[in-house]
This record gives sequence, C-alpha cells and structure tokens, in this order.
Amino acid sequence: MPVHAEKSLTVLGLGDMGSALIRSWLAAGYAVTVWNRSARSAPNGASVAATAAQAVAANGLVVVCLLDDASVRSTLDDLDLTGRDIVNLTTSTPAEARALSDWIAARGGRFLDGGIMAVPSMIGVAGSGAYIFYSGSAELHEIHGAALAVPAGVTYVGADAGFAALYDMALLSAMWGMFAGAAHAFALIRGEDISPVDFAPLMVGYQQAMAGYAYGTAAQLVSGDYTEGVESNLAMMVTTNGTLLRTAAEQGVSPELLTPFMRLMERRVAEGGGRESNTGVIDLLRRQPALRQ
Amino acid sequence: MPVHAEKSLTVLGLGDMGSALIRSWLAAGYAVTVWNRSARSAPNGASVAATAAQAVAANGLVVVCLLDDASVRSTLDDLDLTGRDIVNLTTSTPAEARALSDWIAARGGRFLDGGIMAVPSMIGVAGSGAYIFYSGSAELHEIHGAALAVPAGVTYVGADAGFAALYDMALLSAMWGMFAGAAHAFALIRGEDISPVDFAPLMVGYQQAMAGYAYGTAAQLVSGDYTEGVESNLAMMVTTNGTLLRTAAEQGVSPELLTPFMRLMERRVAEGGGRESNTGVIDLLRRQPALRQ
Repeated sequence: MPVHAEKSLTVLGLGDMGSALIRSWLAAGYAVTVWNRSARSAPNGASVAATAAQAVAANGLVVVCLLDDASVRSTLDDLDLTGRDIVNLTTSTPAEARALSDWIAARGGRFLDGGIMAVPSMIGVAGSGAYIFYSGSAELHEIHGAALAVPAGVTYVGADAGFAALYDMALLSAMWGMFAGAAHAFALIRGEDISPVDFAPLMVGYQQAMAGYAYGTAAQLVSGDYTEGVESNLAMMVTTNGTLLRTAAEQGVSPELLTPFMRLMERRVAEGGGRESNTGVIDLLRRQPALRQ
Repeated sequence: MPVHAEKSLTVLGLGDMGSALIRSWLAAGYAVTVWNRSARSAPNGASVAATAAQAVAANGLVVVCLLDDASVRSTLDDLDLTGRDIVNLTTSTPAEARALSDWIAARGGRFLDGGIMAVPSMIGVAGSGAYIFYSGSAELHEIHGAALAVPAGVTYVGADAGFAALYDMALLSAMWGMFAGAAHAFALIRGEDISPVDFAPLMVGYQQAMAGYAYGTAAQLVSGDYTEGVESNLAMMVTTNGTLLRTAAEQGVSPELLTPFMRLMERRVAEGGGRESNTGVIDLLRRQPALRQ
C-alpha cells in the first residue's frame, strides 16, 4: 500500500529542473521518492525507486518533470494511477496537456499541469521571482497547495488543463521577441566606440518602462477600438520603420529580426489602420480558430 | 542683432512634438520664438516668426524638430548660422546626424543632436520617465544644460554626433522586438476564455523581469565567451522553439514574428554554438562593418 505521509511526494525525472525541484522539497523537510529513466545520481536524501511503478506507488502526489510529452506517456503507460495525483511539470503544448489530462483520468488519476517560469537555479530560492503556472484540477491545486508552494510561487490559471502551458508558451514568445529586439540593438552598436556594458542598462530600463504598453493593447483588444488612447499611431510607426531600416543598413546589420513586424504594420496601414495602435497586428497573426481536442 | 536673452530660444517645427517642447519651455518661463513651414497655430505665449531666417536670427539657441533630415536641410539651407547653436531633435539616422553636424559647422553653427525617448504627452511632465539622448558638441550640452533639462531628462552619450540617433534607434529596435513578442503572445490567448486584461500584467511582469537578461549578454559581448554563466543554452532554447511552433499551430497563429529569431538560433547551434547563450545570434546579424562618413 502506498504511504500517504503528510509531507512526502514522488518526483519522476532527474534532469536539471527535476533535481532542483527535489532539492527544494528535501530542504523543506519532505520525504521524496525519485526515479529516472536512465541512471542519474539523485540529490542526497532522496529515496531512489527501482522502477517508475514503485516510485508512483510510493506517494499519492506524483510530480512529473521529464523531457517531453511522449516520455511522460511512455513512463506512465502501464501503471495503475488509481488515487494518484499527477502534477505534470514537463514542458508541453496546451493541446498535449489537455490530452494528457484525459489520458491520466482514464487511468484513474487526477491531473494538474504546470508551466515553470524559471531556470533551475531560481527554484527554491526565496525572492528569485520564480513561479509556476498551474491549471487543471482546482482540487489538486488546493489539496497540494503547501507542497506546490515550496519550489516557486504558484499562479493557478484555471480548470482548463491546457492553460498553464498556454500561459507558459505565451510568455516565452513575448520573451523571444524581446530577446530578438535586444539582439538587433546590440548588433547596431557593435563596432562603435560604445561598451555593451554601458548600453545595456539604458536598453533594460527602456524595455522595462515600455513593457507596460501591453496594458493599452489589452484594453483595446477588449473594447475592439484600436484607436483608443493612441498617441504614436501605426502610420507614425511605419515612418519610423524607414529610419530603423536605414540605420540598420548604415551599421551593416541585417534587419531580418524586425522586418516581419514591420511588414505586418505596413499591411495594416495599407488596409486602413494608420490611425490605430499596433494592436491590429494581432488580428493579422490569427489564421484560424484554435484547434481543440 | 540677435537678442541673447538669458532664458530664450527658438524652436523650428510645430508638429505634436515641437508644440509639446515649446509648451514646456513657455511653462518654465522661457521666451520662445517659433516658426513652422506651413501655417499651424503656435502654443499661447510663443512669438511666431514670419520666416525661418527671422526665427533663427532671434536667438542663439535654435531647437529644430521637423519631419526628417531633408526638411532640416531645406529649412536651414540659405541661412546664416554664424554663432547659432543648433540642437536637432528631428528623427534621423546616425549617418544623417553626423553629416548634418558637418553641414551646420560649414555654415558657422555648432551642433548637438538629440533622440527623444518619449511621446509628446510625456514632455515637460515631471516623473513621466521621458528623456532625450544628446550627442555632439559637449560645449553646447553644457552651456544649454538648464534649457535642455526643461522638457525631459538629459542623457549625453558622447561627442560623436551620430550616437544620440544610434542609441535612439537601438532602443526603438529593442522595443519593436518586444512589441512583436507581445503581439504573438496576445494572438496565442485569443479565442480562449482568457481576458487580455488579466493576461497583460503577467506578461508585463515577465518581460520586465527578463529584460535584465541583457546584462549577461553585454558581459559576454565584452568577454567574447558566450558560454559564460549560461544556464539555459541555445540547444535548450532550440528545443523550446519546437514547443512554441506546435503551440502556435494549435492556436491558429502565424509564427512569422518569431521564426527569424528561431532560424538564427538554429543556425548558430548547427555551427557548434549549442552550449552558448543566444549572444551568438548578434554575430550572425552583423553583415559588414558600419558605414562611416
């Protein structure tokens, strides 16, 4: 019979992130049973199970942090999940998380999906800003609230098992864009007598200040009026595109990271959106309704 | 003879930004002489000159805020700029600003270029965060320090007349990327039961937190070691690309704003940079040395 100790759980996966999670629970006094597909040393103090089945049988709460959705399924495929609470912290897409939730339910388990907004070194570190999006069973989120709060902050975003992954991927997309813009900016100043170390604080401060622009975008998406409160409109932004492209050419920098955004702004202006903000670009990105299970 | 009053200046240009600048100086007790190419109402209290020549003759300090570099040249072309201190706040490229500096000097004037990091409503508003990059004559920056500090914060970035424009364009590029990432993120959540207004604070907070990533990038650009302090390396980021692309496909969103960045990361990994951070992408953007006058 599995032991439902008050402070115990199982973790499947001993990668960098899995190990960081395990260390945080051990440090908080949890008894942690672990398993990994390949032989990999477990953090000191963890109980290593010989098989995934034994690891899953050891505790009611089973945290899964594996390579991808396929490895989660192959690991859990033949196991009895009756009475098991599966918290999946493996990176996946929204549709994968939704399908996995059903798949777990069909095997007798309850399911909560998570998207980790941190690198391993931030896990279990107070004040690191790390947090995890959770979605799926509200009951699991409540029952296991204390355990879930150990490695990082908890942000529950709804009963839809796909939402944690969706928020995760949306924020990573926003970060990819920010990194791309920063890469172009650094490329522009290279070869000039400007230290990247002196330049970085100016760029960081500007990006931090301008990130709040998204509040206006959100309000416009809700109202449907993309001219609401617009001061720097798309027509003006498109004029700026010209200066940005000439600057890139002067500095010997490929504009490829910026041109797709410029093209969409120009298309929106051509379609009559010159007085709007750039919110209309979002309309141009949607090709079809989201696929649902 | 021009009157060099202690608190007086000339502003050429009555667009939204020029008008905002003028209002800030009037509010600070400056006597402001203005001129505009076309008939446009000037802020109350400004003295309207009949010609650009009269406006330039009225004060030693002449602030220019026109449409583009060509309009600056056509406006100042036949004028005597002897003893005039020209502060150009017209949006331009670094090379345009450098060439204009020489062109002004050849006509007897001194030159300071500026890049305004604000929209008009932020000008003259304490605590708005507005500031202006200045570069070119350090003497002008010092002599006119009090006047320049009226509309917005002052950030002097060097004697190279092109640097203010370069910093301006680099920061705008960084912002374009951030906006593009945010547009993709908003597109992903559309059609789901998620309010953009609830989503925006999460994204803004994440972008603000992750903007500081650029400090590490800057340190790597200086050291030349792109593996320094790397936790989430390019190989891992490229794996994430796959999840981001599948998520975009599921949500019916075109990935076009993210794919150029993904392609460069993949190219760098293919060239052996898998253990690096994404700093190497910056190398791939540089096609040739910067063009200089």
